[in-house]
Amino acid sequence: MTALDHDTGTTVLRRKPTIQPARSWQSWLIGRPLSTADAPHQTIGKAIGLAVFASDALSSTAYATQEILVILVVAGTAALGYALPIALAIVGLLAIVTISYQQTIHAYPGGGGAYIVARDNLGELPAQTAGAALLTDYVLTVAVSVSSGVAQLVSAYPSLSTNRVAIAVGMVFLIMIVNLRGVRESGRAFAIPTYFFLLMMVLTLGTGLVRAVSGTLGSVIDPPALEFGETLLAVTPFLILHAFSSGTTALTGVEAISNGIPAFKEPRSRNAAITLIWMSVILGTLFLGITFLAGEIHALPSEGETVISQLARTVFDSRGTLYLMLIAATTIILIMAANTSFADFPRLSALVARDGFLPRQFTYRGSRLVFSRGIVALALLASLLILIFQARVTALIPLYAIGVFLSFTLSQAGMARRWWKIGHLQSGQEAQERGSTLRYTPNWQLKMLINGFGAVCTAVVTLVFTFTKFREGAWVVIISAPALVLIFLAIHHHYRDLAKNLSVEDYGPPPQVRRHRVILPISGVHRGTLDALRYATSLSDDVTAVHVSIDPEEAERVRLKWETWGEGVRLVILDSPYRLFVEPLISYIEEVMAQRQNHDTVTIVVPQFVSRRRWHNLLHTQTALFLRLALMFRPGIVITDVPYHVE
Amino acid sequence: MTALDHDTGTTVLRRKPTIQPARSWQSWLIGRPLSTADAPHQTIGKAIGLAVFASDALSSTAYATQEILVILVVAGTAALGYALPIALAIVGLLAIVTISYQQTIHAYPGGGGAYIVARDNLGELPAQTAGAALLTDYVLTVAVSVSSGVAQLVSAYPSLSTNRVAIAVGMVFLIMIVNLRGVRESGRAFAIPTYFFLLMMVLTLGTGLVRAVSGTLGSVIDPPALEFGETLLAVTPFLILHAFSSGTTALTGVEAISNGIPAFKEPRSRNAAITLIWMSVILGTLFLGITFLAGEIHALPSEGETVISQLARTVFDSRGTLYLMLIAATTIILIMAANTSFADFPRLSALVARDGFLPRQFTYRGSRLVFSRGIVALALLASLLILIFQARVTALIPLYAIGVFLSFTLSQAGMARRWWKIGHLQSGQEAQERGSTLRYTPNWQLKMLINGFGAVCTAVVTLVFTFTKFREGAWVVIISAPALVLIFLAIHHHYRDLAKNLSVEDYGPPPQVRRHRVILPISGVHRGTLDALRYATSLSDDVTAVHVSIDPEEAERVRLKWETWGEGVRLVILDSPYRLFVEPLISYIEEVMAQRQNHDTVTIVVPQFVSRRRWHNLLHTQTALFLRLALMFRPGIVITDVPYHVE
Repeated sequence: MTALDHDTGTTVLRRKPTIQPARSWQSWLIGRPLSTADAPHQTIGKAIGLAVFASDALSSTAYATQEILVILVVAGTAALGYALPIALAIVGLLAIVTISYQQTIHAYPGGGGAYIVARDNLGELPAQTAGAALLTDYVLTVAVSVSSGVAQLVSAYPSLSTNRVAIAVGMVFLIMIVNLRGVRESGRAFAIPTYFFLLMMVLTLGTGLVRAVSGTLGSVIDPPALEFGETLLAVTPFLILHAFSSGTTALTGVEAISNGIPAFKEPRSRNAAITLIWMSVILGTLFLGITFLAGEIHALPSEGETVISQLARTVFDSRGTLYLMLIAATTIILIMAANTSFADFPRLSALVARDGFLPRQFTYRGSRLVFSRGIVALALLASLLILIFQARVTALIPLYAIGVFLSFTLSQAGMARRWWKIGHLQSGQEAQERGSTLRYTPNWQLKMLINGFGAVCTAVVTLVFTFTKFREGAWVVIISAPALVLIFLAIHHHYRDLAKNLSVEDYGPPPQVRRHRVILPISGVHRGTLDALRYATSLSDDVTAVHVSIDPEEAERVRLKWETWGEGVRLVILDSPYRLFVEPLISYIEEVMAQRQNHDTVTIVVPQFVSRRRWHNLLHTQTALFLRLALMFRPGIVITDVPYHVE
Repeated sequence: MTALDHDTGTTVLRRKPTIQPARSWQSWLIGRPLSTADAPHQTIGKAIGLAVFASDALSSTAYATQEILVILVVAGTAALGYALPIALAIVGLLAIVTISYQQTIHAYPGGGGAYIVARDNLGELPAQTAGAALLTDYVLTVAVSVSSGVAQLVSAYPSLSTNRVAIAVGMVFLIMIVNLRGVRESGRAFAIPTYFFLLMMVLTLGTGLVRAVSGTLGSVIDPPALEFGETLLAVTPFLILHAFSSGTTALTGVEAISNGIPAFKEPRSRNAAITLIWMSVILGTLFLGITFLAGEIHALPSEGETVISQLARTVFDSRGTLYLMLIAATTIILIMAANTSFADFPRLSALVARDGFLPRQFTYRGSRLVFSRGIVALALLASLLILIFQARVTALIPLYAIGVFLSFTLSQAGMARRWWKIGHLQSGQEAQERGSTLRYTPNWQLKMLINGFGAVCTAVVTLVFTFTKFREGAWVVIISAPALVLIFLAIHHHYRDLAKNLSVEDYGPPPQVRRHRVILPISGVHRGTLDALRYATSLSDDVTAVHVSIDPEEAERVRLKWETWGEGVRLVILDSPYRLFVEPLISYIEEVMAQRQNHDTVTIVVPQFVSRRRWHNLLHTQTALFLRLALMFRPGIVITDVPYHVE
């Protein structure tokens, strides 16, 4: 122990305990506890950064094309030709978002997620809306990615079909455990599967394009059966917008890099910005390639076999090694996309919790230095979604992406507002905000225009999405997102009130305790009771023992024994005709409380039986416990447990 | 309030609270709470007594014949002819047991169950064995009776077959709720169905006998398919004994009257004894009649259709009204037999608990004056058995009845011992035992012989039962009964030790508390902490505040604030590199405990956050709760919760 401070008259001692945390089944499952000092501080370059942050975005190519086809196919197979123009429009949107985010990355070198940008520039409500939208979407990312990963597996091994829900939930829990152990985003573990996926995709699309140009690429053999009724709908603008909305899921995950800027090597912003451009180019290319080839081979959307699987077995002419390698790579990258949410969700929920809008518990780092509670919460919510939607990607899609586009909109709008604020600074002047520093920039009008255009585009997509998908499930998000925001605000309200109530500002010197009134509930007279009595009399001269009488003979025995052993302390016997114990006692305590004078403190001294063998506790009524539960919610009562231990 | 006693210098006040118990969902389900003074004190005559106590015994005729046939049929349908001689032997055994129990009823007018008789005459171990055997059998009675009742229903309505387990468990819970409401054994509710069953049985058997004698009774039309493989076994003595064992289930419930003597009108013993004879005569007649007619119509044992159902539709030539009435009557009496166990099990478990061999909680009467915990325990255990054995009577039978016969044996052996004790009294001398009064009786040798013979017969049956049914399931009882007895003894050991430890005999004047050492764990400095500090300083001058530091900045803030607000109290900051809270605190407390001097009391004053809105508690870490759980099992530490309430 080292004394830190004597000069103010208060002794402060500081010590470093030498105890090691105990080993338990948890340390077997998730590894030995880590000390706070073990937190990693490493940064990554562009190539690794691409691998770490791109899996979420790139993996969406595994289902985006298929989801466009699912919508178009209700207008007949001829309508599938609209897929490619729609994909081109989506890639255009991707370009706008990418350019817009370039500016965010440079403005927020400390990390510019939608929550932070909205908080600093738009205020509390938009920030919490962005937070709610993003948290919802992280849960959906896990559910969609894992479900799609299982769909790839089922395409290759159709016999797994009956267990798809169980496999999906099992995967979620596996990812949870890996994340509870603490994934170091060290890169190499991420780089191999990401680049393997890229390689396989380039190989598949390249072969496919060459064969398409040379005219040797045929149609899918034995395409999956179409699952809709044969009443064809017309191709309407609504249908096209609907298909467009479904396809925009390809853009999910683009925001990942802007959250993770601090992980990059210096110059962080520059490296992150270049990586984002690379990622967008690759994403756009893959998405267009898949959509084009899917049209060439006349792939059909199906729950039984994914479009990727149809494409691969047509390009490679069989379900051979290359086919299986592509399916494996796709499955792995989808699972890694889910894994990305396991990094993002806990980090964002900790951020929101630190601001006081989610329970504080989300800010605690577990034994492996990760935000364990956020990880567990995400796994439970995603599993629930998978169970409800039976691991069907198409059923989940209408809920998905709306949150992403809402957060894009809020983020870009926040950036536009930031440029406007910057434009009103003096040249050379600086202003510090929570997430970034504002510095005057000459061509701020152009930059504001870019972000404003991004905001408008993504806002339009959000609205289109809401209208076209409303009946299919988007209404769930329309209801749940505001509900979440309200919950966040209620939590914040509580913490703020609490802080105000507890604040020591304006707190006068506390009044001293003048008198203790002690109540000692006893069920019988024995050594345990007498120990408690001894403790009670050491607190105060004003002690009242109370016996609740269910059996008159027992009450008489207590009375006689108390006259011998009660040290003259007053005994009150409460008759309880309904054989209740806690209720008569509480009504008595309330009477005493009503009569007390100022600065009297009422203390209930409860003799508490405790045995070292836990099963012994089953043999006792645990009245003390019930009494505590009943009294806990009444103000002004101090409860003291005096244990009596029996070997 | 009325003062009772002032002369010893101790004030004792007694008061009758006027509070009524609160209404809750439970009072909707089981009725409004009853005052202890509402306990019923009514007695019943012979006719009602027969109805109340006979349902258990009579209902066993619904399955006893069938269970004999199930065993015999493996030797081919020809072997079914042995059923009638076996039934005659069982009726002979019934006569012996009845005569033997006549003496018990006269000796124990206050109730002569096997547990009481064994306790008074054979000692602790046989008494607990009888208790364990009976409690086991009460659970099995519920499982067997309800399963058989459902089997009758399924015979009449085969489409219910797939839901038999759910129906059975539902019935158990219905009976549980009725019993939690408190069944007044007022008789009429019992008399109608019992006499309805008797009437229907007499009608069916009478018609059957008349038709059999007149030769118009044919065989069963479309008998159920035999369910065993076609490899016939030979008729061996083992097979006959096996069938006999199964048939002895007919005797279960015969002991019910000896438990319930106090319910009879005076002269209680005489009325109870006559009722027992009547019951045995009826039981024997029904059993023989059913077995004889089952042979005449060539009924076959089956899970799909009961023998009773085959008999009724053959006698009445159709599944008409009379058939349905008999099936209904049989189902109802089976359910009432289960209901009998719901009276017996809680009563016996309360008796055993009062003697200290089961948890005390079993002796408490619930809001409706019944032993609620025993009722709930019985329902849960019986449901578990029904689930495990899928409501199949034949699967449950090997476990059943062994407990009944063991308790018959112990009860009769106890009675024999009692006559021996009586024989050694002086003429005219009386001796008081816990359950009865011993008076010299001249022809005690004859009476001892009768009970002794009964004991030997039932002991032989118990052994036969064990050997013939061992592999089928009796081994479960052979293992579980001694295990139960060991548990009873362990519980008794604990209560006895506790009483000795807590006894105030040889307890010197308790040493006064010399000095309080107070430890005050704080997470921050706020009004809640300061309230707790104020309370702590009112207990003692030796107060130490302890802050477990996870975040160094937070610790520094606490230190600065404490210097202002800590009233000069010593503050210890414990660094916690593994972000644990409770463990470093406990290791510190243990150090303090090790250094304390004699008669020092260590008190932990815990500031406990409490909100009136329960959901708010989710937003706090409840450290106080975890601390309490961790400290509860350490001797010598008093824990005081000082609540800080926030609106």
